[in-house]
Amino acid sequence: MAGERYFVGLDVGGTTMKCAVVNDHGHPLSAPAVMDTHPERGQDAGLETMCETIRRAVAAANLTLDDVTAIGVATPGLMDIKAGLILDPPNLKPWKNVPVRDHIKGVFKKPTAYQNDANAAAYGEFWVGAAQEAKSMVLFTLGTGVGGGIIINDVIIEGEHSHGGELGHLRIDTPDRGRICGCGARGCLEAYASATNVVRRAREDMAAYRGTTKMRQYYTANDDVFTARVIFDLAMGGDELAIRVVDDTAYYLALGASALISTVDPDMIVFGGGMVGAGERFRSLIDGHVKRLGLTYPTKSVKITFASLGSDAGFIGAAGCARLLVQQAKPA
Amino acid sequence: MAGERYFVGLDVGGTTMKCAVVNDHGHPLSAPAVMDTHPERGQDAGLETMCETIRRAVAAANLTLDDVTAIGVATPGLMDIKAGLILDPPNLKPWKNVPVRDHIKGVFKKPTAYQNDANAAAYGEFWVGAAQEAKSMVLFTLGTGVGGGIIINDVIIEGEHSHGGELGHLRIDTPDRGRICGCGARGCLEAYASATNVVRRAREDMAAYRGTTKMRQYYTANDDVFTARVIFDLAMGGDELAIRVVDDTAYYLALGASALISTVDPDMIVFGGGMVGAGERFRSLIDGHVKRLGLTYPTKSVKITFASLGSDAGFIGAAGCARLLVQQAKPA
Repeated sequence: MAGERYFVGLDVGGTTMKCAVVNDHGHPLSAPAVMDTHPERGQDAGLETMCETIRRAVAAANLTLDDVTAIGVATPGLMDIKAGLILDPPNLKPWKNVPVRDHIKGVFKKPTAYQNDANAAAYGEFWVGAAQEAKSMVLFTLGTGVGGGIIINDVIIEGEHSHGGELGHLRIDTPDRGRICGCGARGCLEAYASATNVVRRAREDMAAYRGTTKMRQYYTANDDVFTARVIFDLAMGGDELAIRVVDDTAYYLALGASALISTVDPDMIVFGGGMVGAGERFRSLIDGHVKRLGLTYPTKSVKITFASLGSDAGFIGAAGCARLLVQQAKPA
Repeated sequence: MAGERYFVGLDVGGTTMKCAVVNDHGHPLSAPAVMDTHPERGQDAGLETMCETIRRAVAAANLTLDDVTAIGVATPGLMDIKAGLILDPPNLKPWKNVPVRDHIKGVFKKPTAYQNDANAAAYGEFWVGAAQEAKSMVLFTLGTGVGGGIIINDVIIEGEHSHGGELGHLRIDTPDRGRICGCGARGCLEAYASATNVVRRAREDMAAYRGTTKMRQYYTANDDVFTARVIFDLAMGGDELAIRVVDDTAYYLALGASALISTVDPDMIVFGGGMVGAGERFRSLIDGHVKRLGLTYPTKSVKITFASLGSDAGFIGAAGCARLLVQQAKPA
């Protein structure tokens, strides 16, 4: 084991924190330590929970802190990545201006990397996941919202104001006609393709649909559990209206992807999050729309894939950011 | 002069080639040497003209080739930047698969950088032009078409298939309703904001406009010289319809800019090309629309400026790429 390096990756979410020790090849040494975030208990409690989750992960790996080379922490935005600060994230209320990086660095006395959670997930997929063969990649993460990350040759596009890869707010329809997004603007990708908005569009489509559809039967009986997952399952089962909702979702995602082809022109575009469960049929729907909508020359070669690390991408990517930090600090 | 390094920058266009020797601080040592490209004479003649333009530039700088550290060449696409090849560019017909970089390198025995012309112009503005204080920048170049370039911390986003920063083909309206672009797709920024399409929109607006407008008088008398420049001049003079056309142009450009804010989140967005002549009023129109349309947090701080190097940006940027090549080859 001489020379093997270990990196701690901590992924802080609005509900839980996940943390594991990851080796130099991106493999977690144990199942992640998981603790509830309880943002409502305040940021000092939050910082202490982060430290405790890290300690539990190190213990779960049968290591001590002396074995750890560096630590990586990922949190949701708003944040100031360069300053290592959580600013004012909507799903960590009432936290404000929390000096995450300096706190963790001070407690553990280790080089500490700090990154946006979606960027970290993208880096995880780039390092050891779906995009490990790619030289550059874009990740769209589909969940309650739509997040994103852009990696080019081992560089994470953080943005000058920590908003690089905010792909949920890429506009895919015009500001006068587009659907209204949670951010207040019209036409954002998130207003079409987040799980929440897939459900919303399905309801609207049902209201306008004259035919019979299992979606309507399901919705009437189970309106409290009418989720994007249910819609994708009904589509898999052949329901015509559900198929249309799913195909529209693929179309909207392809519009987002084609904007990234004309700007970043990546090697690979990866989709992650719950909808990935819909499998190859959904991937090939997105791929087909991308081929039709993207700029011809680069679109011929771009690869459209699904993420492979699931919800581990965040902490693996955070550990990868810690590793990057140490590599970049080394003289070339 | 001991230790001063000199870089040759050559910008190959469909009509002319421009070349100058540039010092380590980005200052050209003379007015550029200019020669006609004559693509119709074939690619061997084209390569020889490139070499001759380089020789003339070195002579104009009162230097010899021994004084030159490296050479940078910029050409329009389609191209393979990594391979140093012109592929099949529409405005260099009938050239095909021209090994530009290896040819220049072979003739002059100097390290030779190769770059897309719009990327080179962006790097020129980043190095010593409008964005020299910026850490990251996006350039939109407005001409017959709309080109672009993205620079992040001295790295040019070339794209995996040499299509990074193809900002003219960023979609700002949907594929079913948008204006038709020269590339065949609907909704590309270029279909709205290139000089050609500004004129086209002005004609359409005139046809639908019931009021009196100097634009119509001008067009009737001078339909062969009804250019974007004329429309911008009439807007400056207060013509209501011309003002609307110009404001719409600013709106479309701001839609393009806001897509870059959500993906790259740059420090600065720079607009270059002929329309820059319209001055501060046009810049502030774009800025106003960006503030309204961009993602709130990063948009508060992003700077919207006009390019400052004019048509010298290409060869200065090409020389800058040569300088980058030499820096990157050095051990850190």
